[in-house]
Amino acid sequence: MSSAKQTIQPAKSGQTEAAHNQAAVLQSAISRSRPASNSIAAVIEALKDQFGDRCSVSESVRLAHGKGESWHPPELPDCVCYPHSTAEVASVMSLCHEHKVPVIPFGVGTSLEGHTLAPLGGVSIDLSQMNNVLQVNAEDMDCRVQAGVTRKQLNEYIRDTGLFFPIDPGADATIGGMAATRASGTNAVRYGTMKDNVMSLTFVNAKGEVVRTGTRARKSSAGYDLTRLLVGSEGTLGVITEVGLKLHGMPEAMMAAVVSFPDLDSAIQTVIQTVQIGIPIARIELVDEAYMEAINNYSQLDKPVRDTLFLEFHGTENYVQEQVDLFAELASENGGGDLEWARQEEDRNRLWQARHDAYWAILAKYPGKQGFTTDVCVPISQLAEIIRYVREQVEDSFLDAHIIGHAGDGNFHMIFCIDQTQQDQVDEVYRVNALLVNRAIEMGGTCTGEHGVGTGKLKYLRKEHGDEALAMMQAIKLACDPENILNPLKTVAV
Amino acid sequence: MSSAKQTIQPAKSGQTEAAHNQAAVLQSAISRSRPASNSIAAVIEALKDQFGDRCSVSESVRLAHGKGESWHPPELPDCVCYPHSTAEVASVMSLCHEHKVPVIPFGVGTSLEGHTLAPLGGVSIDLSQMNNVLQVNAEDMDCRVQAGVTRKQLNEYIRDTGLFFPIDPGADATIGGMAATRASGTNAVRYGTMKDNVMSLTFVNAKGEVVRTGTRARKSSAGYDLTRLLVGSEGTLGVITEVGLKLHGMPEAMMAAVVSFPDLDSAIQTVIQTVQIGIPIARIELVDEAYMEAINNYSQLDKPVRDTLFLEFHGTENYVQEQVDLFAELASENGGGDLEWARQEEDRNRLWQARHDAYWAILAKYPGKQGFTTDVCVPISQLAEIIRYVREQVEDSFLDAHIIGHAGDGNFHMIFCIDQTQQDQVDEVYRVNALLVNRAIEMGGTCTGEHGVGTGKLKYLRKEHGDEALAMMQAIKLACDPENILNPLKTVAV
Repeated sequence: MSSAKQTIQPAKSGQTEAAHNQAAVLQSAISRSRPASNSIAAVIEALKDQFGDRCSVSESVRLAHGKGESWHPPELPDCVCYPHSTAEVASVMSLCHEHKVPVIPFGVGTSLEGHTLAPLGGVSIDLSQMNNVLQVNAEDMDCRVQAGVTRKQLNEYIRDTGLFFPIDPGADATIGGMAATRASGTNAVRYGTMKDNVMSLTFVNAKGEVVRTGTRARKSSAGYDLTRLLVGSEGTLGVITEVGLKLHGMPEAMMAAVVSFPDLDSAIQTVIQTVQIGIPIARIELVDEAYMEAINNYSQLDKPVRDTLFLEFHGTENYVQEQVDLFAELASENGGGDLEWARQEEDRNRLWQARHDAYWAILAKYPGKQGFTTDVCVPISQLAEIIRYVREQVEDSFLDAHIIGHAGDGNFHMIFCIDQTQQDQVDEVYRVNALLVNRAIEMGGTCTGEHGVGTGKLKYLRKEHGDEALAMMQAIKLACDPENILNPLKTVAV
Repeated sequence: MSSAKQTIQPAKSGQTEAAHNQAAVLQSAISRSRPASNSIAAVIEALKDQFGDRCSVSESVRLAHGKGESWHPPELPDCVCYPHSTAEVASVMSLCHEHKVPVIPFGVGTSLEGHTLAPLGGVSIDLSQMNNVLQVNAEDMDCRVQAGVTRKQLNEYIRDTGLFFPIDPGADATIGGMAATRASGTNAVRYGTMKDNVMSLTFVNAKGEVVRTGTRARKSSAGYDLTRLLVGSEGTLGVITEVGLKLHGMPEAMMAAVVSFPDLDSAIQTVIQTVQIGIPIARIELVDEAYMEAINNYSQLDKPVRDTLFLEFHGTENYVQEQVDLFAELASENGGGDLEWARQEEDRNRLWQARHDAYWAILAKYPGKQGFTTDVCVPISQLAEIIRYVREQVEDSFLDAHIIGHAGDGNFHMIFCIDQTQQDQVDEVYRVNALLVNRAIEMGGTCTGEHGVGTGKLKYLRKEHGDEALAMMQAIKLACDPENILNPLKTVAV
């Protein structure tokens, strides 16, 4: 079910000027059907000439690229190619521009919101073979990588420098994909998101030109912030090929812990107080009771099956101890149990791997079912209230759902495991998610904290941003990609 | 001398497509002369009707608005109006849109790069009377203010909440102006710049529509980051009327200090090592020997007249002590003297007021002269090298210049005090600044760390960003302001 298709409607009379502009963009989108078959054929032939084996039209390859790790039904590209350089991406893009054929950038396919689907066909550009770390400037704590480098690969590469790259979506995603979707993860409460850690980019624009943004300076006021405009643009303004990143010093001391609570409210109150009194906690993750059981089973842990916080503290030895003491006091005041510590790197890694595998843990509990995850983010003062609200909705529903989240940011996921062949289950998930998203937006929050818009969140953008901001996004899209060939029908194609 | 005017050249043959596009924008800019006098007259008449005394055509008022605190010769708007609400700004903007009359947003006029000049005349919108704090959400550590609220006013307002707003350009600038220019200051090394602290905006676009961006959520992946596109856009994409800001918890302990060094290199090495070993220093400011003498004289301090660092440490009592001990060791290893401490709030305030008054201190040393300040920012590993380079240039010059800077970010200012009526002095300043900027860009840095482009840095944007990125900025400008009435000939109007 492509939301993009559902939401494309002809312009209605009685609209504001902003709505009219946007309707014009919409018309442009509507007029985009699949390219003529001879255009596609010409592009494929040229790509086969240029790329040889690095261009594939096999159905299995196309299927693997036309579907993310998600509930969105696949929509296949016409071919997949595997460039090795920015210049090769530019040549693919020039070719596609000439023939007005869509291009869909692809990293390793860990998107949850249908970013890699090809609703109009076209060329999926798989960047996973562009996986060289280009530069590490340890003294300036920055680096430059090709888009296909994954976060784990980068951290492995820089292990000896005493630096690390903190952004950690659960999956081992590519840095390019993480930049394109403005990803974050468990460390965001301390280290920010991709928005805060991308310093510069190289991307290929709709015409096949190579654009460079940003510098290695830590700050700049030199014109429009194209770097941050591209971060989160999901391939709709350009194909990111290189990323300059901030790195962070590995803390002298790190301590991780797990602590369980009598109920979710007590856990959330502890999170809120931790952030409000300014403990610079590196990670503070919320896992509900049923989710904890699934994680225990999947990752062979033996934590109490209760509403739980996963924590990590970074700093000097003394400072970590100070943070820990302060946190333990707060947790205890809120009825928390004893903190179970993971001091050794091996134990910490095991704990966080279990947290990162949580999505798979819950799927394992419901064999044969498909996962569907929500992603709202609210001001932290509203977190307990919105979780209470959505739990009530789930209690009235015939589906189960479990909560896990980056509680320190006010961001949480509710995971449903459903049988996608049963339309009533699909409808019910969409119904509850719509209630949740609408409530989050009314509370001053957002429909997506970190998973992005893709096709899955398109329908909520107007409510979140309003007509005028959405019209501005669409005007920018149109100015940068008038032929609508960059990942069409995604992100702002409402 | 308006750089904007100097750099407008007709398109040449043999250009790339990007250059051609940009030439088209350029043509659009060239075709903008002052609006017809009857258009201006119609706008002024309507504004007088609507605003009464809050619309002025007096020459002194126009002069005060058509000149920042800088060396750029004034260019006067045709009138100045003082709205009290977003709706009033929208009505001014609609009127100017109808008559194709330029609009120049104005805060309190502390810009150093000619942002408030009116090279094509038009209406200066003075936002200083929009100075209400609209909302403080202490539990979420955020607030919302009208654009005319100044940073000191905000901090005074929230004093009882235990929170503070850290961004501190020397002047008591408006939050709207600081957002528009992506300002920073002495705290940026710890707390980031306006880019990192603006959560949401309300602005009025070229057509007079009210646009809202961002939410109160701490993170979001919901579409293009218009907030960060507007931050640093200098009034060329919209008139910012309200700003949502992150606030920060007032640290339990703060200690400030001054330490002097035998030479600038030793001071800079200390800064580099401090950042590299990860002391989370809140402020680390570099002042050269001659500058220190001027500050002593102007602010009645009695610090040693040597190359000096001004410092501040934030944290818990114990953690501050840990940072201090570590820093003192580094400083000592680099030949630094004893740290002179300012522990009490009163002493700290006195020290930082002296630092913030530094621009006035150096001007006081050269009575009757005009200040000219550079603003490059480089990767911190390059800081010593570029300062060495530019000092050599100054030694070969017939002008004096002194260095002060946000050394922890790699950003510094070289202040020249010149007689602007002497063309050879003006030429010499521009010559040395051009050498400095070009060298900074070659080192991976930027022409402006925090003062912005305005008209003063226009000529360097192509070298810093390249043809393609500049063309993209111009395409965005054209898409958002096709009539070129939002602060024309600034920022991207190369």
